[in-house]
Amino acid sequence: MQLEETIEIKGRSIIGLKDGADSGQSVKALNPATGEEIEPPFVQATTEEVDQVAELAQSAFLEYSRLSGKERAKFINQIANQIEALGDTLTQRVMLETGLPEGRVKGETGRTTGQLRLFASLAEEGSWLNARIDTAIPDRQPLPKPDVRAMQRPLGPVVVFAASNFPLAFSTAGGDTASALAAGCSVIVKAHSSHPGTAELVGRAVQKAAEITGMPEGVFSLMFGGGRTVGSALVTHPDVKAVGFTGSTGGGTALMKLAAERPEPIPVYAEMGSVNPVFILPGALAERSEAIANGLHVSATMGVGQFCTNPGVVMLQSDDAGNSFKDAFSGLMESHADEVMLNRSIQKAYSDGVAARDGNSNVEVIVSGNPDTTSGPCHGATSVFEATAENFLEDESLSHEIFGPGTTLVRYSSQGDLLKIAENLEGQLTATIHGTDTDLEENKELIAILERKVGRIVFNGFPTGVEVCPSMVHGGPFPATSDGRSTSVGAFAIDRFTRLVAFQGCPQSLLPDELKDGNPLRIQRMVNGSYTKD
Amino acid sequence: MQLEETIEIKGRSIIGLKDGADSGQSVKALNPATGEEIEPPFVQATTEEVDQVAELAQSAFLEYSRLSGKERAKFINQIANQIEALGDTLTQRVMLETGLPEGRVKGETGRTTGQLRLFASLAEEGSWLNARIDTAIPDRQPLPKPDVRAMQRPLGPVVVFAASNFPLAFSTAGGDTASALAAGCSVIVKAHSSHPGTAELVGRAVQKAAEITGMPEGVFSLMFGGGRTVGSALVTHPDVKAVGFTGSTGGGTALMKLAAERPEPIPVYAEMGSVNPVFILPGALAERSEAIANGLHVSATMGVGQFCTNPGVVMLQSDDAGNSFKDAFSGLMESHADEVMLNRSIQKAYSDGVAARDGNSNVEVIVSGNPDTTSGPCHGATSVFEATAENFLEDESLSHEIFGPGTTLVRYSSQGDLLKIAENLEGQLTATIHGTDTDLEENKELIAILERKVGRIVFNGFPTGVEVCPSMVHGGPFPATSDGRSTSVGAFAIDRFTRLVAFQGCPQSLLPDELKDGNPLRIQRMVNGSYTKD
Repeated sequence: MQLEETIEIKGRSIIGLKDGADSGQSVKALNPATGEEIEPPFVQATTEEVDQVAELAQSAFLEYSRLSGKERAKFINQIANQIEALGDTLTQRVMLETGLPEGRVKGETGRTTGQLRLFASLAEEGSWLNARIDTAIPDRQPLPKPDVRAMQRPLGPVVVFAASNFPLAFSTAGGDTASALAAGCSVIVKAHSSHPGTAELVGRAVQKAAEITGMPEGVFSLMFGGGRTVGSALVTHPDVKAVGFTGSTGGGTALMKLAAERPEPIPVYAEMGSVNPVFILPGALAERSEAIANGLHVSATMGVGQFCTNPGVVMLQSDDAGNSFKDAFSGLMESHADEVMLNRSIQKAYSDGVAARDGNSNVEVIVSGNPDTTSGPCHGATSVFEATAENFLEDESLSHEIFGPGTTLVRYSSQGDLLKIAENLEGQLTATIHGTDTDLEENKELIAILERKVGRIVFNGFPTGVEVCPSMVHGGPFPATSDGRSTSVGAFAIDRFTRLVAFQGCPQSLLPDELKDGNPLRIQRMVNGSYTKD
Repeated sequence: MQLEETIEIKGRSIIGLKDGADSGQSVKALNPATGEEIEPPFVQATTEEVDQVAELAQSAFLEYSRLSGKERAKFINQIANQIEALGDTLTQRVMLETGLPEGRVKGETGRTTGQLRLFASLAEEGSWLNARIDTAIPDRQPLPKPDVRAMQRPLGPVVVFAASNFPLAFSTAGGDTASALAAGCSVIVKAHSSHPGTAELVGRAVQKAAEITGMPEGVFSLMFGGGRTVGSALVTHPDVKAVGFTGSTGGGTALMKLAAERPEPIPVYAEMGSVNPVFILPGALAERSEAIANGLHVSATMGVGQFCTNPGVVMLQSDDAGNSFKDAFSGLMESHADEVMLNRSIQKAYSDGVAARDGNSNVEVIVSGNPDTTSGPCHGATSVFEATAENFLEDESLSHEIFGPGTTLVRYSSQGDLLKIAENLEGQLTATIHGTDTDLEENKELIAILERKVGRIVFNGFPTGVEVCPSMVHGGPFPATSDGRSTSVGAFAIDRFTRLVAFQGCPQSLLPDELKDGNPLRIQRMVNGSYTKD
């Protein structure tokens, strides 16, 4: 039985059903907890292999894009099954490569398989196809009305760049891959060099699922490649029609530029940086200062602060109540033990960010996450800074993200300060407000400003922990993402990989099933202006 | 009564409720039929006025974006009423500035007001908002599920560049403006220099409608400006959040570049060039050669060929049946009288395109639209060229648009030729196939290729005449448009000017009405995964 075969790490790219050739160049993963290399070496792909992969993805797309939602769902559900079948092999490898604790890895595995099953069910449900039918009126005056029918069709092969901070949920078979496959696109994943073994295990699970469910070769490939050569070659390949990315602002904007300068520009969905501002209003602080401090501490240190939704900037009033909050929160942060960050470059960027803020006269250091005192090669210590609202507004560097467990408290004296800070914000994934009903009623203008700046507003909660559900928006205006109209988490994510196509006067037999008379697939459609499943 | 006041052309930009200042620079429109100047002069806006307009648009947006769909609908319906109230003043001015005949101008007026009323009804109907509610499960294990609600919100101030070829339906109060206003965006129109009087008449009708319905000042402005100074300043203004454009590939790609290079990149919806290929299959040709020739002649000369959907390239078999078709079609084209084109630059571009093809050894000239023999300063004569499939595939210039009444017949010998030609096509607004049921069954692969290349496939019809309805797609992959995911005609066009926003744990009183419990607006929403109007 195929399901019984063990999946092994070969250290090779996955090119459709084949393994990548030996390019002579290979790289090993590093264990961030110890700094030691992990076996085996991973052979880096060549630009010739990029061409092979892209051509396979294109020929697979021609077939895969015409499969029914039900058939695509079988494949995607099978991916979830195969990931579950990896069991402890996967858990151990993720822990080794990322330093993440077992509970988190298992939780993220569940989220990843749950996400895959959500998109499988969407592929079948079909309302997101926006199928619309306007029937002909041949005797309309002055001109006959034609029969016009339209629906979303998949864009073409999609390149997905895996994220370092979610080795499963935003990587090889994460949200971008799941939503692109559900939409009917073939997918090429560029593995993250931080967790190649994790990438290959999941990649081989996808490959196995594709074989079991009889998908065309090339519906999925996985490439290893350091630097930017392989990634750039993928994004500029003429057969590639869209890009998904989760990572740094530098990486995301570089991809946007590459994609915009192609002879045929293509959409890039890059989810980049965000400081996820938190506004603590006076009534809420008076009512539950301790609870907010506890919650903020948990949120700010979750995943060693390496979440896109990490609350990096907190607006706190400048009076005694604010001081008490500061003391309580700083105490929790200070006593928080060092933890292993994902890799050296993230740890270095965090240390550099903390050091720069340490040396910035516009901020006061409350808790200094001094990297020299940490207990391992990739360890990160929490940090807390404080700035006046005035300095925060004047010093743009203070609103830049420090990716890791660092928080800057901004001390405000008036509602006016809050409105200025909010209006001055760049695009963000989230904003959070802690307020009593009275606070919120008195700060409607603040909420209105935030609504223009972010993808999700959280009331009396914390931004980390992104629920995967139909209404979730994990997006936000640039520079939080490259395309603020979209989300990379939740059911709406499928829309990113589609485009509208209309059929005018098309014979029934040639229409896609989704647009045929009698609605054989029983999907929700708009027929002559009314929604119906008939 | 306000409705009784006569709207007069002042030759000034419309800056919210005020007129543009006298910049000292002005330009008059030209009558393309006579080459004579038309009074009055139009004062060109300054970049200072761009700042004024953008700031007004931004402050209006803050208020307008929070109005209910019903209130926005009142405004948009009133625009349609005010355009109708312009009556013959408008018709005469359009005819004078564009050379278009009265029937066409009246038809386009009806289409424009119909479009406005469609978007007004959409603003109220609300299903396009994608309102979704996922209610909380506080006792879910291992983590509580939060209450999350999301919907589309308007992007912000939108700049619309008016088109020369549809002085009403794609200009001041055309589809881009109507859909942006319906979405809740304020709009700044950059008038086309080819028909400034038409722009001002319609602009003043919009201004009057805004006053009558009590809209915030700046919800609509109209600017005159030659060259690219005013347009560039508008697109690069930080308050502007999206751009709509209909025009040339050069103009559209320049705007894409400007928008991509902004500190905050913004979406550009540019509808650019297309040759709208027509494939005539053998069975159809045998059955109804004459009818297809007649229909193609009407479509190719409609609006003097100045339609985005003009059929510029026609695939025709190379045998005797094809020769007979060529003779019939060429005869009709040759005897077609010269007609007035929209302006000198369009006429010159058409003449230059025809002259280049006349001198190209890869094509044979069947009907030469020699500009020297035409009867007026802006007149355009029909032209027909012929090329072999081989030459067409080798000479890329033959697949470039010649905007005007010119058609290139491409003679094919086999199905293989058709597949190669289709695969070689750039993105197009439309493709058309004439075929019997047998033809179509035998050419499924051709249809599948075309589906990847175009926004709309027309079967046994003609591409001109774009029905404004819920299912219409007037879009297509680059370079037909800048963003192949969208359409600039039909109800889907509203999606272009929105982005997703989620509210997590938001108190009922602060939620937009669209997301409140009990669905006070009775719009279609998805609640816990199911669609409902309750």
